[in-house]
Amino acid sequence: MEPVLSRDPRTGESRGQVAVEADAAAVDAAASAASAALDALADRPARAVLLRAWADAVEARAAELVAAADAETALGQPRLSGELARVAYQFRFFAGLVDEGAFLGVVVDRPDPAAVPPRPELRRWKVPVGPVAVFAASNFPFAFSVPGGDTASAIAAGCPVVVKAHPDHPATSELVAETLRAAAEKAGLPADVLSVLHGYQAGTDLVRHPLIAAVGFTGSVPGGRALFDVAAARPVPVPFYGELGSLNPVLVTERAAAARADEIAAGLVASYTLGQGQFCTKPGLVLVPAGPAGDALAAAAARTAAAAAPGALLDARMRDGFLAGFAARAAAPGVRTLAAAAAAPADGIPQAIRAGLLEVDAADLGGELTEECFGPLTVLVRYRDAAEAEAVLSRLGGSLTATLQADGAEPGAAAWLTRLSRLAGRVVFGGWPTGVAVAPAMTHGGPYPATTSPTTSVGAAAIDRWLRPVTYQTVPPELLPPELLPPELLPPELAAP
Amino acid sequence: MEPVLSRDPRTGESRGQVAVEADAAAVDAAASAASAALDALADRPARAVLLRAWADAVEARAAELVAAADAETALGQPRLSGELARVAYQFRFFAGLVDEGAFLGVVVDRPDPAAVPPRPELRRWKVPVGPVAVFAASNFPFAFSVPGGDTASAIAAGCPVVVKAHPDHPATSELVAETLRAAAEKAGLPADVLSVLHGYQAGTDLVRHPLIAAVGFTGSVPGGRALFDVAAARPVPVPFYGELGSLNPVLVTERAAAARADEIAAGLVASYTLGQGQFCTKPGLVLVPAGPAGDALAAAAARTAAAAAPGALLDARMRDGFLAGFAARAAAPGVRTLAAAAAAPADGIPQAIRAGLLEVDAADLGGELTEECFGPLTVLVRYRDAAEAEAVLSRLGGSLTATLQADGAEPGAAAWLTRLSRLAGRVVFGGWPTGVAVAPAMTHGGPYPATTSPTTSVGAAAIDRWLRPVTYQTVPPELLPPELLPPELLPPELAAP
Repeated sequence: MEPVLSRDPRTGESRGQVAVEADAAAVDAAASAASAALDALADRPARAVLLRAWADAVEARAAELVAAADAETALGQPRLSGELARVAYQFRFFAGLVDEGAFLGVVVDRPDPAAVPPRPELRRWKVPVGPVAVFAASNFPFAFSVPGGDTASAIAAGCPVVVKAHPDHPATSELVAETLRAAAEKAGLPADVLSVLHGYQAGTDLVRHPLIAAVGFTGSVPGGRALFDVAAARPVPVPFYGELGSLNPVLVTERAAAARADEIAAGLVASYTLGQGQFCTKPGLVLVPAGPAGDALAAAAARTAAAAAPGALLDARMRDGFLAGFAARAAAPGVRTLAAAAAAPADGIPQAIRAGLLEVDAADLGGELTEECFGPLTVLVRYRDAAEAEAVLSRLGGSLTATLQADGAEPGAAAWLTRLSRLAGRVVFGGWPTGVAVAPAMTHGGPYPATTSPTTSVGAAAIDRWLRPVTYQTVPPELLPPELLPPELLPPELAAP
Repeated sequence: MEPVLSRDPRTGESRGQVAVEADAAAVDAAASAASAALDALADRPARAVLLRAWADAVEARAAELVAAADAETALGQPRLSGELARVAYQFRFFAGLVDEGAFLGVVVDRPDPAAVPPRPELRRWKVPVGPVAVFAASNFPFAFSVPGGDTASAIAAGCPVVVKAHPDHPATSELVAETLRAAAEKAGLPADVLSVLHGYQAGTDLVRHPLIAAVGFTGSVPGGRALFDVAAARPVPVPFYGELGSLNPVLVTERAAAARADEIAAGLVASYTLGQGQFCTKPGLVLVPAGPAGDALAAAAARTAAAAAPGALLDARMRDGFLAGFAARAAAPGVRTLAAAAAAPADGIPQAIRAGLLEVDAADLGGELTEECFGPLTVLVRYRDAAEAEAVLSRLGGSLTATLQADGAEPGAAAWLTRLSRLAGRVVFGGWPTGVAVAPAMTHGGPYPATTSPTTSVGAAAIDRWLRPVTYQTVPPELLPPELLPPELLPPELAAP
């Protein structure tokens, strides 16, 4: 079986073998084991117990997990500690949703013989879809990987999870899986509520497996689209909830640029270079007005970008892709380089790169400039009037976020917000899109290619992806699940104390 | 352009040309006009006004519409009058949902700097996905066609609709479209909130059209799967909500058969021959216990089926398909014919057929017997014990419904209900699946091939298919839609009186 190596992105060197790729038999075993764990997860209180046990378990091994992830991703201890804290918070957040039960969507209709057609007694709730495949992301080794939001929300829904680990952090994935599986057993549940596989072909086999009922994915447009196509081509197609790529456009109004060019420039550079620009919500295209106010903003951004600290990207392929992507965009007609992305070897980080910043007039905006470039690069697009800004927006695909920098509620701001809401699932006013709160009202999803489905992978509604509705018609109370009973019919052992 | 003919299914004869097939330019014009109508439907109160105006409009022309549909479908005036009443009820039902606004899914998070990561102010709601393509069904010329549930729920969501008419009732489709378009204009909205196209190629072109944001479909497995594949293969894939095919299994327990064989037989035959068996919820496979109680049930069903009134199917292709489907199943190894489906020409209905009833031992159950046969036919599958019944259920695909006939809450009934809930979106206890109430708790959908997506096309949740979430982050109140404002910040003209 093919070995799986861990690599140090700071040096590009191998850290040795940490696992093997799963062959077809291993994929089948994992899917079957997940299916066998379905009944154990049907116990809703047990799911809340499990999620809280997982929060405790990752916190108990935090130092070890963060060190493992830093060695494989170069994302740094502070960022990774924050990410792991977010993971623990997220497990407890979904445990709270499981306790509360609103996600079950219980609706009860009394019979109505006068309706057309007549209405029998109907009781609806939502049940788990079945075992779920989750594809981990490169850029969040915790929060969008083995212990991430897809896993937490699927378990909350009652669905066992098979994770296809990302090749950028296989050792971390193994360590997290071991932690979560042990905690599951300690909580009295099968370890196989979660398992981890490695290997490209294993991922494809997993999506094709008849027992897999839905797929969650966070990654690139080509990789995500290929797996989306596999899921759609199955004899029994399954939902594929993929987050693929996002340009995250920003529009700066003339009045905003005039009022606070330096502040906007500083915020923008901090946002697009955060984590070396490896956030799915990185702003990758910024509409800046032509003229002196926009010039001041661009100049300030150029100064700040040039001073940004170099760092390593997640792997050598991304480093090469980033440098090539910058070079191709910088060479496009009409493009001006405000800060040159380049290799910038530093002490102990021979693979480090520095951030780039490009500028182009709206009239010259070419094809590749409207596509995401993963890494610390953004493109300022200078527009002369609203019509030119609208022409740029009309060429963009869907995004996770769209941001408006306006001068308070200036005239036209409401119309821009409405326009931006057609492009994205989250519209940010006056702030920056990087950073995604785990919250009931969050939407982390948007029109294609931001996501393949109009839904969210972060926040309370993420659980909806792993459920399907079932209606019970004229079923007597003694045969109903307790969730569908009125409180006075609950058996004494289930009634609230 | 290709002519579209109306046909009389009772005689098989043409009733003349009523429309032309849409070419690519006509499809493009319809999609563009629908897109242009989006802004008008963004006005939520206007949508409720429109839906109520449509209810009034179809009621005002009820006699004319029912006559048109009966001439093309042979479904009969009583059934079609009921179906049209259901359509009017459904329009008003969705108007009520639009008034109420719960479908907007408004969630507001106050800022929480202590959360990990910190939580900004977030306000989430749902917005229309865009223009929707709806494929009308053969068997419900009103309730699942031009004025049906997909149209009503999409308009309620704020999405203009382009309907691909079913070739079995083109004249009815034209008449309904004319009625609804005129009512829209009278209500101050563009007629193009709804338009109708004819033609197979037009349907495919419509699904491929870049302005179409989602598709609703009710029809056959081959037709639905072909269009699902087209939707998935688009450069920008769109959700395809298809209802494709459903066997609707019934399980009769030994004790139920012993207690009320005649009642169950009568209910079963009434259900599977209703509307000449052309309901998507027709029970097509019935697990009946081996032994004397089951024998009595089968004998009673055979007597009742033989006495069922012959009638015409929706078109000649379905008639041929039904008779061939019956013959193939009847000839399969081990199958016993309890009532022979056959041509049964009647006065004025030369194309009439009579219902069939087949029986087979569970051990002999062959492939085609577990597939839907459209028309008045069901298959009794005799099982000797629970293991044999389970073996049959494990071979079935997803269904819209699954029904349990038990002796009250007998031992084992709860386990059977849980088992059946894995196969279907609606589990019926002691009743029959035909007849779908338009109600908040209804689920009309199930695992593939019942539907392509775990959702419902009937009832309140049908509206969710045409919406996507958008979150506003730190947007000042004066720039928010009124739905996202707390009541005390509503402008006076929008506050409740």
